[in-house]
Amino acid sequence: MRNNVVTFMACDSEYEKSDIIIFGAPFDGTTSFRPGTRFAPPVMRQESYGIETYSPYLNMDMEDYYFSDIGDLDLPFGNKTRCLDMIYEQTKEILNDGKKSFMFGGEHLVSYSPIKAVYEKYPDLRVIHLDAHADLREDYMEEEFSHATVIRRVWDFLGDGRIYQFGIRSGTKEEFEFAEEHTYMNMFDLSQIDEYIEELKKFPIYITVDLDVFDPSFFPGTGTPEPGGVDIKEFIEFLKKIKELNIVGADAVELSPHYDHSGISSALAVKVVREMLLVMSNK
Amino acid sequence: MRNNVVTFMACDSEYEKSDIIIFGAPFDGTTSFRPGTRFAPPVMRQESYGIETYSPYLNMDMEDYYFSDIGDLDLPFGNKTRCLDMIYEQTKEILNDGKKSFMFGGEHLVSYSPIKAVYEKYPDLRVIHLDAHADLREDYMEEEFSHATVIRRVWDFLGDGRIYQFGIRSGTKEEFEFAEEHTYMNMFDLSQIDEYIEELKKFPIYITVDLDVFDPSFFPGTGTPEPGGVDIKEFIEFLKKIKELNIVGADAVELSPHYDHSGISSALAVKVVREMLLVMSNK
Amino acid sequence: MRNNVVTFMACDSEYEKSDIIIFGAPFDGTTSFRPGTRFAPPVMRQESYGIETYSPYLNMDMEDYYFSDIGDLDLPFGNKTRCLDMIYEQTKEILNDGKKSFMFGGEHLVSYSPIKAVYEKYPDLRVIHLDAHADLREDYMEEEFSHATVIRRVWDFLGDGRIYQFGIRSGTKEEFEFAEEHTYMNMFDLSQIDEYIEELKKFPIYITVDLDVFDPSFFPGTGTPEPGGVDIKEFIEFLKKIKELNIVGADAVELSPHYDHSGISSALAVKVVREMLLVMSNK
Amino acid sequence: MRNNVVTFMACDSEYEKSDIIIFGAPFDGTTSFRPGTRFAPPVMRQESYGIETYSPYLNMDMEDYYFSDIGDLDLPFGNKTRCLDMIYEQTKEILNDGKKSFMFGGEHLVSYSPIKAVYEKYPDLRVIHLDAHADLREDYMEEEFSHATVIRRVWDFLGDGRIYQFGIRSGTKEEFEFAEEHTYMNMFDLSQIDEYIEELKKFPIYITVDLDVFDPSFFPGTGTPEPGGVDIKEFIEFLKKIKELNIVGADAVELSPHYDHSGISSALAVKVVREMLLVMSNK
Amino acid sequence: MRNNVVTFMACDSEYEKSDIIIFGAPFDGTTSFRPGTRFAPPVMRQESYGIETYSPYLNMDMEDYYFSDIGDLDLPFGNKTRCLDMIYEQTKEILNDGKKSFMFGGEHLVSYSPIKAVYEKYPDLRVIHLDAHADLREDYMEEEFSHATVIRRVWDFLGDGRIYQFGIRSGTKEEFEFAEEHTYMNMFDLSQIDEYIEELKKFPIYITVDLDVFDPSFFPGTGTPEPGGVDIKEFIEFLKKIKELNIVGADAVELSPHYDHSGISSALAVKVVREMLLVMSNK
Amino acid sequence: MRNNVVTFMACDSEYEKSDIIIFGAPFDGTTSFRPGTRFAPPVMRQESYGIETYSPYLNMDMEDYYFSDIGDLDLPFGNKTRCLDMIYEQTKEILNDGKKSFMFGGEHLVSYSPIKAVYEKYPDLRVIHLDAHADLREDYMEEEFSHATVIRRVWDFLGDGRIYQFGIRSGTKEEFEFAEEHTYMNMFDLSQIDEYIEELKKFPIYITVDLDVFDPSFFPGTGTPEPGGVDIKEFIEFLKKIKELNIVGADAVELSPHYDHSGISSALAVKVVREMLLVMSNK
Repeated sequence: MRNNVVTFMACDSEYEKSDIIIFGAPFDGTTSFRPGTRFAPPVMRQESYGIETYSPYLNMDMEDYYFSDIGDLDLPFGNKTRCLDMIYEQTKEILNDGKKSFMFGGEHLVSYSPIKAVYEKYPDLRVIHLDAHADLREDYMEEEFSHATVIRRVWDFLGDGRIYQFGIRSGTKEEFEFAEEHTYMNMFDLSQIDEYIEELKKFPIYITVDLDVFDPSFFPGTGTPEPGGVDIKEFIEFLKKIKELNIVGADAVELSPHYDHSGISSALAVKVVREMLLVMSNK
Repeated sequence: MRNNVVTFMACDSEYEKSDIIIFGAPFDGTTSFRPGTRFAPPVMRQESYGIETYSPYLNMDMEDYYFSDIGDLDLPFGNKTRCLDMIYEQTKEILNDGKKSFMFGGEHLVSYSPIKAVYEKYPDLRVIHLDAHADLREDYMEEEFSHATVIRRVWDFLGDGRIYQFGIRSGTKEEFEFAEEHTYMNMFDLSQIDEYIEELKKFPIYITVDLDVFDPSFFPGTGTPEPGGVDIKEFIEFLKKIKELNIVGADAVELSPHYDHSGISSALAVKVVREMLLVMSNK
Repeated sequence: MRNNVVTFMACDSEYEKSDIIIFGAPFDGTTSFRPGTRFAPPVMRQESYGIETYSPYLNMDMEDYYFSDIGDLDLPFGNKTRCLDMIYEQTKEILNDGKKSFMFGGEHLVSYSPIKAVYEKYPDLRVIHLDAHADLREDYMEEEFSHATVIRRVWDFLGDGRIYQFGIRSGTKEEFEFAEEHTYMNMFDLSQIDEYIEELKKFPIYITVDLDVFDPSFFPGTGTPEPGGVDIKEFIEFLKKIKELNIVGADAVELSPHYDHSGISSALAVKVVREMLLVMSNK
Repeated sequence: MRNNVVTFMACDSEYEKSDIIIFGAPFDGTTSFRPGTRFAPPVMRQESYGIETYSPYLNMDMEDYYFSDIGDLDLPFGNKTRCLDMIYEQTKEILNDGKKSFMFGGEHLVSYSPIKAVYEKYPDLRVIHLDAHADLREDYMEEEFSHATVIRRVWDFLGDGRIYQFGIRSGTKEEFEFAEEHTYMNMFDLSQIDEYIEELKKFPIYITVDLDVFDPSFFPGTGTPEPGGVDIKEFIEFLKKIKELNIVGADAVELSPHYDHSGISSALAVKVVREMLLVMSNK
Repeated sequence: MRNNVVTFMACDSEYEKSDIIIFGAPFDGTTSFRPGTRFAPPVMRQESYGIETYSPYLNMDMEDYYFSDIGDLDLPFGNKTRCLDMIYEQTKEILNDGKKSFMFGGEHLVSYSPIKAVYEKYPDLRVIHLDAHADLREDYMEEEFSHATVIRRVWDFLGDGRIYQFGIRSGTKEEFEFAEEHTYMNMFDLSQIDEYIEELKKFPIYITVDLDVFDPSFFPGTGTPEPGGVDIKEFIEFLKKIKELNIVGADAVELSPHYDHSGISSALAVKVVREMLLVMSNK
Repeated sequence: MRNNVVTFMACDSEYEKSDIIIFGAPFDGTTSFRPGTRFAPPVMRQESYGIETYSPYLNMDMEDYYFSDIGDLDLPFGNKTRCLDMIYEQTKEILNDGKKSFMFGGEHLVSYSPIKAVYEKYPDLRVIHLDAHADLREDYMEEEFSHATVIRRVWDFLGDGRIYQFGIRSGTKEEFEFAEEHTYMNMFDLSQIDEYIEELKKFPIYITVDLDVFDPSFFPGTGTPEPGGVDIKEFIEFLKKIKELNIVGADAVELSPHYDHSGISSALAVKVVREMLLVMSNK
């Protein structure tokens, strides 16, 4: 009859019983333009009650699966290395318990840690990366670990031909040149997934969604809005195509709720998460 | 030279002379998530002066027709039954005077009353329902009459095969199952109207537009934004297709202006109303 | 290390061990002007982490006391009577367990239930009422139970000379005339508390704070802002004066967070609650 | 039962029967910093329903008097001279009908016209001017008629020793030097009214209130917020002191509602107008 | 190491060395609905640092060209004629120095001056006009020179068959009739450019972009949002098609940043300007 | 006639000629609650044109003095130590050139560097600290250098009895205990300055103003609003009292402009800076 355990909707199963474990990583310490993603996880939980647990797109209902939202990590903002370590440890623990992890950001840098942890368990991991920005800089404002370098840091351990990027529409010339040699770079939209799908079925997959891949009209609440992005229908088509894949970990990052008073960004973020959780539950 | 009779633009004809009577029903008493639709009618009137009376889509001008905006009903918020009765009586009066009614909401529950009144005059009525949400629950939060049950309540008296739903992208599994048996459910967009148009020409039509059928990017100012909706171009194409129908009543509901400081939601709502009024004037 | 039990700061003691029990009553069903107080309790919990547990005004620290925040009641919005009953039952339970209750609103109507419950335990109860509005109407928009009638409804069972009103600056002429005969009406500010303090020491006290007693400059986030109110320094002086009283129940209502994007209203509300909880802990 | 004649609250008497006539002058063509006061009159009418008709400060009720709100002038924005002429003609007409005028701005320049019209009827007129800014420049951005020069233009016809300025806290050095010789300049607050009150009783009075005289904390919704202003309590004390004066015309200008999403500026503006209308009704 | 010369990104070359000169014309004196475009130029400069200098659409980098942003003209708001003259003189100077001009508005009226200046240098000039509104009125609110008449005023000197309008979706019936005879009017979107491209290659081109041609979902921050507009992808396709043309002058107008707190309108505006500057640099 | 060198108003003198040098330090890397102060300096420059150069409080005009605003340091956000070093070096340079420095923050941590630099030149320096928060923690979230520890770090080198704190109303119990022994702690308001003024005349003074010392009603645009603060009139009285002191350096920090859409926080900040600059110019 009363409740102040706040979980993402329909993610209140016991940890032991659950197949997918959700946690938040509210860190935005390297954000260069407009900070605020640290506020995303509690807002996503709160707003998730504005949508239904049933997806008419997938004809699946979250109530039919077991998800456990274990809350946010209590990260020491001032210590980036320590933050990344804590996220890494959390993901390790989830994987060791035989479960899949789903993380709410925070800025995109936080994705480094779960991808690393998942990679260590699944050495032939492939990463699907949706984003407006290439995130392939060698360093950014004198920092090696930054929201603008995170996929480059992932490449450091994954190596060539393992990263599939979609929706990218912003970067330096150098980043696009780097991508040409080292990643599968698919610019502007998500349509090119078709050509990779058969190949990707052979590998475990991590999918990292920088929500700014969506057009700012759909998703104004983010630090660096980049016009010309994808829409939610296109994204759901994309998800339907990858639902046969073996997705072992995922995240959705870069919601900065204070920049959108209308709340449509949060509404989109929670719908994206619902669909991603269902697609991950498919197998 | 001076004026504080505020009407929707070009709706200042005398009641007697007018073919279509506009009124507001500023009620939001059952809104579960973010209330505020009660403020919509005065905002729509005010904002309507930002657009033209001429529609380049339809090549029709509101100045060439007779519309009378008779203002808002003075509804007692605390008494839902009384509110619904007053709206019903108002619509009856308009119909008895041989005119068509057009209502500004308020939340979607208010549509119950004019549909009922119109149905009593036209027993073979068909209802076209545009919405993000199915609104087909048997009850909602222990209430039978609610914004989330309104089309189910309409079905109670209309019966099977009379309700044509478009754009629906949210609901419980049960609602979609109910629709499969009892209504014409068309999910996600408006394109399927083509297959019904010949049949619909045979009947009087009421059209109820829950404005949240539009994507939140176009229409952030609403209580329960549901990403993945239609856009205004698609809607105008839809209107062009139905302009041969005999539309005897209509409404546009669920604008909640306080949630959109930019005013684009109100701008869209008034454009939608302009086009609907012109399409209703077609015959 | 991780957490999604969200309580008001320093209110995470076990229920059994705690002297004061906090709960939320997120109801705004009768709000006539600008609804939204239903969102207040989770916002207050979230924002409470922006202030310290230590009060330099009272030289007291919340960490030195036992408070338990048991979350929000899950109220059926559509059913006002049922909502009031549920709040009443919750307060009864807390009182029966030998504890004091502190409630977050919601609109002011919710105060009816805990005052009733506390009165039944303490028949010689006195009520201190801080508010911009008299709330003494016999009925409002045809409703007997409303945010604008709540203190009149409390008077129905408490009777004459039991209600002490402060900061009142809005009402109908009739309300002020009623007050003259039946309550202690103190207009515009809080200074007159001095003359009642000795008398009030003899009785158990319930204090209900409609946060719109504060000037809208300090507290813009409310449904019916009424300029000319008190400030936080004046309020803290007031609290210091009543800290010798035997306060057995309390509430703080009418924060409507969506009307204040800057967050200063929530910041004030949580500071008010901290000070009230400490003053209630004084004995 | 229905209504779209929108008047300021309790200002719906017939013109003929009314003692005070209210009209709006929605012009902001010379605003240099943040325009938007043109939207003030309809917002003030709408928001006036959030407060009561009874003033506990003055123990007077608007319902006991006859006010007529005749709406807004339909001003051609591009033609400043024509706008000023239309406002002048409107005021003339009201005065010729033996009534007092009360105008809602618009920017402060609009006050020029009613003061001129009132002066022509009452050649020994005194003007009480409340404002943050001196408005005494000889010209502003090459314009003689501007919101920043309006009181200087009034001085052009009124001459020395007729203008009483209060609350002024911003201006060029030259303006303050001009004031020293030609007006009664009272800086920072309203307290100095006491020394003039006996003298002012001998003359007909026009009172022009630039609402930015209030501190921006109380009144953020204005074009050029100037910290350090007066509060509403101080203003009401001021009004009580001048209620014996023979106020023959008045205005309240410079509300720019789009700059204040919380609505507290509009709430203050309508309360100010209520009190001013009651004080003008005193005799 | 330190800097308060603020230029549009990558537009800090010396004037002499630069091929394209950027300047701002912050005037909004005739805006009828929601003013504020005067604030656009500094916001565009500031926000330009949120995007990259490299365009993946055109595979061109601003760093490879010479642009000089010479700041804003210091316009006397009150004197429209003088403002237009100053803008005209500035453009003349740029043209006389053998350079191309690019102007940030301000409201659309400011485009009159550079088009006139460019026309005087290139008498066979063609104008490409992107806009939601036809801007072809003979006069507006009694004014001949206004944001709503600007293209008609351009027609006055250019004459028939020289103006190519795209994206137009609002106007009076008379404006559309005028266009039929005197301009190339292309309604609703930008697709019809294909049929003109070969012809246009023969002439010098001025392109004036009223940013409200974009749908309000992408560009809420404007004075008169008109639903049903183009999106950024469509616009970039359009630019790619015209990149062979000899564009000798351009502008982007009608950003009103205060109406969009999320900042997506500014983000779109700066991306549009980047792409336009690169396309102008093509030859 | 054109300009894109943006300086704080009236701070456009040459460096060499100027007595006071203004620069910005847009760093907010350790902000724990709501980041955004990095945006303050450009906003303060822009907004400064909304107020006059003349102070009626001090009867002084900025135009009569020489100030040079040299712009913002280009700080590498990710490297806190490097940022602090750069600010330190900048201040050193200004002091070496025989001038006084005035810094715009950024978060409060940035004050560490100029205070250190000034202290090294003036070893008997006293620091006047206005703030809502004590900022005396030994460490915060595992960081020694943080906005919440900055005054403690200043104490590290200044030692006991050199820091005069005013307006403090928030902190841990430990911070207040520390203050009792090591600083002059004056809680809640600024009135106690009188008792120190004679003593302070003997020493060079640095004044650091955390703008959150103002009540959130006056200054909502800050990261951690703390109700119960000072107002601008009180602050100006304070300044008048200290104008005889030998102020050799100063700063104003913690404006976070994105949290205040009305702009009143920026308006207050620029007025505060004007008055501080004038008081520093007094000798």
